[in-house]
Amino acid sequence: MAIQTELTRALGLTHPIIQAPLAGGGDTPVLVAAVGEAGALGFIGASYLTPAQIAETARAVRGLTRRPFGINLFAPSPAPPPADASGALARVAPYFAELGLPDPTAPAAPADTFPALFEAALASGASAFSFTFGVLPAAAIDAIKGRGMFLMGTATNVEEARALERAGVDAVVAQGSEAGGHRGTFAGEVDAGMVGTIALVPQIADAVKVPVVASGGIMDGRGIAAALALGASGVQMGTAFLTCDEAGIPEAYKQAILGARESDTRITRAFSGRPARGIVNRFMTELERAGDAGAILPFPLQNSLTRPLRAAAAKAGRAEFLSLWAGQGVGLARRGSAAQLVVRLAAETDAALRRVSAP
Amino acid sequence: MAIQTELTRALGLTHPIIQAPLAGGGDTPVLVAAVGEAGALGFIGASYLTPAQIAETARAVRGLTRRPFGINLFAPSPAPPPADASGALARVAPYFAELGLPDPTAPAAPADTFPALFEAALASGASAFSFTFGVLPAAAIDAIKGRGMFLMGTATNVEEARALERAGVDAVVAQGSEAGGHRGTFAGEVDAGMVGTIALVPQIADAVKVPVVASGGIMDGRGIAAALALGASGVQMGTAFLTCDEAGIPEAYKQAILGARESDTRITRAFSGRPARGIVNRFMTELERAGDAGAILPFPLQNSLTRPLRAAAAKAGRAEFLSLWAGQGVGLARRGSAAQLVVRLAAETDAALRRVSAP
Repeated sequence: MAIQTELTRALGLTHPIIQAPLAGGGDTPVLVAAVGEAGALGFIGASYLTPAQIAETARAVRGLTRRPFGINLFAPSPAPPPADASGALARVAPYFAELGLPDPTAPAAPADTFPALFEAALASGASAFSFTFGVLPAAAIDAIKGRGMFLMGTATNVEEARALERAGVDAVVAQGSEAGGHRGTFAGEVDAGMVGTIALVPQIADAVKVPVVASGGIMDGRGIAAALALGASGVQMGTAFLTCDEAGIPEAYKQAILGARESDTRITRAFSGRPARGIVNRFMTELERAGDAGAILPFPLQNSLTRPLRAAAAKAGRAEFLSLWAGQGVGLARRGSAAQLVVRLAAETDAALRRVSAP
Repeated sequence: MAIQTELTRALGLTHPIIQAPLAGGGDTPVLVAAVGEAGALGFIGASYLTPAQIAETARAVRGLTRRPFGINLFAPSPAPPPADASGALARVAPYFAELGLPDPTAPAAPADTFPALFEAALASGASAFSFTFGVLPAAAIDAIKGRGMFLMGTATNVEEARALERAGVDAVVAQGSEAGGHRGTFAGEVDAGMVGTIALVPQIADAVKVPVVASGGIMDGRGIAAALALGASGVQMGTAFLTCDEAGIPEAYKQAILGARESDTRITRAFSGRPARGIVNRFMTELERAGDAGAILPFPLQNSLTRPLRAAAAKAGRAEFLSLWAGQGVGLARRGSAAQLVVRLAAETDAALRRVSAP
């Protein structure tokens, strides 16, 4: 049975399943298209791409499928104030040396790339547009809606969900504390926004009229059925898609996910300067242990600073230096194609719903 | 429709709902009996009672209902090493003065009260026995099973669930990070065990053969339906029962729950020395801010130290000094009798399951 919800009807999906934007190379055109062909919604995480790469990636997806897909950008945030990077440079220098890299250099002040990225995203042919880390400017929201794109924003608490609805989103992604990758929190402290999915989804569903997409800790059909029972109109899943054959992450990262347990992840700022959940590894542990203010630069400077290290670690298969973003459902990860995963998820959801609705 | 599961069949319940032990006065005999009469399982949190009080409370419950009820104890843990309490005394002294109390005194080394409490619990007439903070000694487990009591232990991660199953429990309570009150973590650090319910329940359900009871963030029928979809055989709910008319907590505490939002709770050691989730208030904030080691004694010493303060605050209606244990579903709390709550929960569960199973 294919479950239809407000979300599937609005987007023309067979299944109420969204592949989370996996900014950082995970969401290859082949993955995004395969997810779409399977009847779910694939997403291009575009924030780390150039405008030309966005155009190229979207063209590649459109060449592989006529099914809808989505595109995701970080909401623009004010550039961090100039800071002395010497502490952060000194902290990561030994790891650069260990990987045979030249000494790290102070990251340049981030340029305001949002307008160009946004134009490329608008022109991508995507049916859905999602964002995180805040609320898009009103002009951007108008432009997205003018294109007829389905607009989604990320909330980690009720206040953020209300702000997103006021801004005009068509759906709210409720990001529970279990979720892998960056916390979307923009109103209040990240710590305060660490609300688990089973508590967050119904409270957001009660607070807004638009459909809610549950994310965080959902890895199989039991999680999807649970999200629907909580009042969600669909789910967004990241970790589950990272171990798909088509996902473009290093094999060492896939192995780390497949070997991890439910309590092996933590929130860290070590890699990007923004709190994000990943599998505990050496870089995270050692940088957090240092603890001195200034040893980790604000986002996106820390992200720029650690990029060469992560790139070299990916080539060398050294998971200890990779940002191993993953959620707390990580123990349920499995291998296979994206099509196999979506078929399994749909069958498992049906089975879970049948099991609980039996008299 | 009354949903039957392994749990309801084993315990003779109408609904797969357990009222969490609310050690500290919340679970009055009237509440426990009303929950039982409504077809769910009420629980006496007995760890802060004397053996005589356990006998008296259980007798009162039995006088009000013939339905089954449960009794809960903390697993015995080694006494904390003698420590200099002067820092902790100095830290709380101003609050004692503010409430007109005499200066705080260093708490006495905790006596080994477990054997006497355990005998009283065994003789209570309870049908179910649950424990937290560890695994009971084998002799205690044998005695419980010899009485034909249904035995449950609390797990916050998969490793703990496996340990409980090996020890012979009849069911595992999976305590998600959303849960109010004390963390049950006994294997590994509490931080590592902060796994959300939607991720924890299916991973524990896959790891053990015994039924799993979901707890953490479940406040209404949507949460119950979700827990069942995740593979749980039932739910344990604390916060939802705290605002029942029959719950014996101070009115100021009930008001704090009814006024709190989903992101108003935090994990703190300030009140008892063990990590527990409660609504942020002045005492929690100020004690945590102090931050110096030694300012908070280990459990149960800190609990003894702050008891007079909490008792005086309860009398004075000063929620700023109460341990306002509550989970992240707190925004869904509502007033009413326990019977009304259980009837609503059952109807909402049915409605949630009907909604998601509609073709």
